[in-house]
Amino acid sequence: MKDYDLGKLTVATIASHSAFQILLGAKREGLRTLALAPPGRGWFYSRAWFVDEVWELDLRDLTSMADRLLSRSAVLVPHGSYVEYVGWRAALEIRVPTFGNRYLLEWEADQHRKMDLLASAGLHVPRTYGSPDEVDGPVIVKLYGAKGGRGYFFARDADELREGLREVDGPYIIQEYVVGVPAYHHFFYSPLMGRVELFGFDVRYESNVDGRTFGLAEPTFVVVGNTPLVLRESLLPGVQRDGESFTSAVSERTGRPPIGPFSLESIVRDTLEVVYFEFSGRIVAGTSVYMVHGSPYSLMYFKEPLDMGRRIAMEIREAAESGRLQEIVT
Amino acid sequence: MKDYDLGKLTVATIASHSAFQILLGAKREGLRTLALAPPGRGWFYSRAWFVDEVWELDLRDLTSMADRLLSRSAVLVPHGSYVEYVGWRAALEIRVPTFGNRYLLEWEADQHRKMDLLASAGLHVPRTYGSPDEVDGPVIVKLYGAKGGRGYFFARDADELREGLREVDGPYIIQEYVVGVPAYHHFFYSPLMGRVELFGFDVRYESNVDGRTFGLAEPTFVVVGNTPLVLRESLLPGVQRDGESFTSAVSERTGRPPIGPFSLESIVRDTLEVVYFEFSGRIVAGTSVYMVHGSPYSLMYFKEPLDMGRRIAMEIREAAESGRLQEIVT
Amino acid sequence: MKDYDLGKLTVATIASHSAFQILLGAKREGLRTLALAPPGRGWFYSRAWFVDEVWELDLRDLTSMADRLLSRSAVLVPHGSYVEYVGWRAALEIRVPTFGNRYLLEWEADQHRKMDLLASAGLHVPRTYGSPDEVDGPVIVKLYGAKGGRGYFFARDADELREGLREVDGPYIIQEYVVGVPAYHHFFYSPLMGRVELFGFDVRYESNVDGRTFGLAEPTFVVVGNTPLVLRESLLPGVQRDGESFTSAVSERTGRPPIGPFSLESIVRDTLEVVYFEFSGRIVAGTSVYMVHGSPYSLMYFKEPLDMGRRIAMEIREAAESGRLQEIVT
Repeated sequence: MKDYDLGKLTVATIASHSAFQILLGAKREGLRTLALAPPGRGWFYSRAWFVDEVWELDLRDLTSMADRLLSRSAVLVPHGSYVEYVGWRAALEIRVPTFGNRYLLEWEADQHRKMDLLASAGLHVPRTYGSPDEVDGPVIVKLYGAKGGRGYFFARDADELREGLREVDGPYIIQEYVVGVPAYHHFFYSPLMGRVELFGFDVRYESNVDGRTFGLAEPTFVVVGNTPLVLRESLLPGVQRDGESFTSAVSERTGRPPIGPFSLESIVRDTLEVVYFEFSGRIVAGTSVYMVHGSPYSLMYFKEPLDMGRRIAMEIREAAESGRLQEIVT
Repeated sequence: MKDYDLGKLTVATIASHSAFQILLGAKREGLRTLALAPPGRGWFYSRAWFVDEVWELDLRDLTSMADRLLSRSAVLVPHGSYVEYVGWRAALEIRVPTFGNRYLLEWEADQHRKMDLLASAGLHVPRTYGSPDEVDGPVIVKLYGAKGGRGYFFARDADELREGLREVDGPYIIQEYVVGVPAYHHFFYSPLMGRVELFGFDVRYESNVDGRTFGLAEPTFVVVGNTPLVLRESLLPGVQRDGESFTSAVSERTGRPPIGPFSLESIVRDTLEVVYFEFSGRIVAGTSVYMVHGSPYSLMYFKEPLDMGRRIAMEIREAAESGRLQEIVT
Repeated sequence: MKDYDLGKLTVATIASHSAFQILLGAKREGLRTLALAPPGRGWFYSRAWFVDEVWELDLRDLTSMADRLLSRSAVLVPHGSYVEYVGWRAALEIRVPTFGNRYLLEWEADQHRKMDLLASAGLHVPRTYGSPDEVDGPVIVKLYGAKGGRGYFFARDADELREGLREVDGPYIIQEYVVGVPAYHHFFYSPLMGRVELFGFDVRYESNVDGRTFGLAEPTFVVVGNTPLVLRESLLPGVQRDGESFTSAVSERTGRPPIGPFSLESIVRDTLEVVYFEFSGRIVAGTSVYMVHGSPYSLMYFKEPLDMGRRIAMEIREAAESGRLQEIVT
């Protein structure tokens, strides 16, 4: 990064997931923008005035593009599809400055380590079962990796679970099914400011479980979109504390704070207990409910509302201006 | 339209459906505004600072008002209630410049032609059944015309369908019931720019199917409102292509592109397949989720977000300024 | 209030519920802001740039703080948690100018008087039952006081109701269960302008009834948050009339109009009949769906959108500037 031309700093991201707000936010902060598109999708992003350049490529080859990215003074911004397309191993190895704590991507890829990290932060988590024999109530089974919920299934009891597991290929986790309502909490950890910023909330919109299925199909949990949510204000201080506890746990376990956006995914019980069943160590797509207009909660710290894409770009720009880029990339 | 005073161009619309954003958008673009109100509703619109004039009238008599509208240099902007109150035949005949492709209103009024048009665009559509005897799974029955879902019903099988049809008066369609989540996609076709603009998404909020019915009543589908949705970003390029395919099909079948706002209404399966079960050849009420603040997706093409009402007014204003009004009205 | 320094007028509210938008709105209107925090929650509000001062205190002692509040030229803004923490009796007695019609808080605390007031306004309301013996269909049972839905329960028939009531301690109401979709309507009554302003809509997000419970638990109705809603535009004139009828009924029964924000909570049937099952005589948390960006409906009366927090502050500021503070406090 020593050779980077800070006047030409370029935000590069995979053209999917939350790329729209990441690239728009970068442009609004005066940075250059580069969309790394899976084959056949570049045309869409190239229509946006805020995308300076589009490279269409097989994303499994991204590591081989390192030199070209470095020549553009690029900072990679990872998101859920980044992990899915590039893979967390390549994400760990690629010799391009990556915004955020990339070591966290490895933890995120393993559902069991993921839950351990949440538990070590002192957060309420659902029970995890080692096998169907331990199961004494309803459960949900989740595959490893960020697949947008594909392959997840619900089982009412140990027998349904055993039957469902027959179709599963690859590693998974068996998790207690918590009854309540889902709420996804967005945070931003700023190394420059040394603080955890609560950014907002969304609810995933999942097919078919959020449709009108009239009992015609087994529940499935494939993420099709996100819808906005205002959380009960009395829950905010507790949620903020949870974000801070998680930040400490990440620092302790990975040697670095989460850096930039992360998310804690919860079910809120009717006792108002917040139970965390997942985290994302990078921007979540649900932050797009605040796209362009910005999150009202960002007004805690700023005079005008910001969306997460803009917040990322602001951190990169300010780090560059103050010679602190090393603190925000890994 | 030769006698129109372009300095006094007036956007006129029926005071219902999406009139709020249409009239506000017009005022913000510097046009005059006229609300055509069903009896007893004029008072509400006359309170808004952005409504210059309110005419309360029996809307079935609208055709007889043509001269008065022409004297105001009026451009009619049709929407769902326009079709319902005025009727598509009157809408086709009225001698007042009408924003959009009014021939499409006729296609929209016939559920079978509607599905044919979608299919001819190469979009995924549900199966259509000619009679209960052909039915081998769950179906939904829809009446003709834009009635906001009134009279629609769900049937689990052929027997339930036969029973339900006994109560139906008038033309209808029997459609395969697709399991997934609803997503309504908003587009704007600009003849001036020669492009299809993806504008956003909503989900209809329907009574009673979106309430907590606890099995107390049969499902009904009456539209009570709309809620915002952010669609999974990886679906956007495909949805944009679908909007463009539909535009081509409309041009081919009706001799004109859709002109201005249209909507493609879909169910997204848990395979992420997008199945279109309806279209609207004019502004849909769901665009009001972006009312005033504007749609983030409009940032693809503009520097500040626009809502659909404003987008319509912008097209009218720019067409007037460049002597191209004939291209955007029918 | 004669001793108040109008240049130092301070908006004071309990740090919960809708305090974020109330305090932010006050700051944006140039007023001072004071958060009255329950023990252990002050730190959260003290991080916001728009909160000038935070007092952490046992809120049951608020009445004893009257002199300190008066010395700050404070205007108390009540909300749902205000009633819950301070109690309506203390709210009635406290010798501090209170924005709004505080007498209405007493009506709101009694579910039967509440329904009487709605009925006396001529609004459609569900039936109320005096005992399980009168019940001939599904009902919902609600406890007195604003507890965010805690303890509410649904009963399919008189037998289920009798069983449920065994667990109930304290006063309650048995209400006909109306099938449809919930819609919460926000209004602002301005004594300065002499008008009822329709501000918007939300839907409560309740645990567990809005989750995916798969029949694993009885329905509960604990408010966890709120989600935005655009209401069908053809319903707006009727809803506006309902708000005005309610305002008249409040004036008649309590001797004062509702002053400032109030809410009418409804179920909309699939006949589009709007049935009101509750009201709130002060700001509701659901107005936070418009937090910061403002409600599009506020454009009926203003050139830029406002949220309810800002609207309250604007009324206070304008009342102070025009020597009419007495008209907006009780």
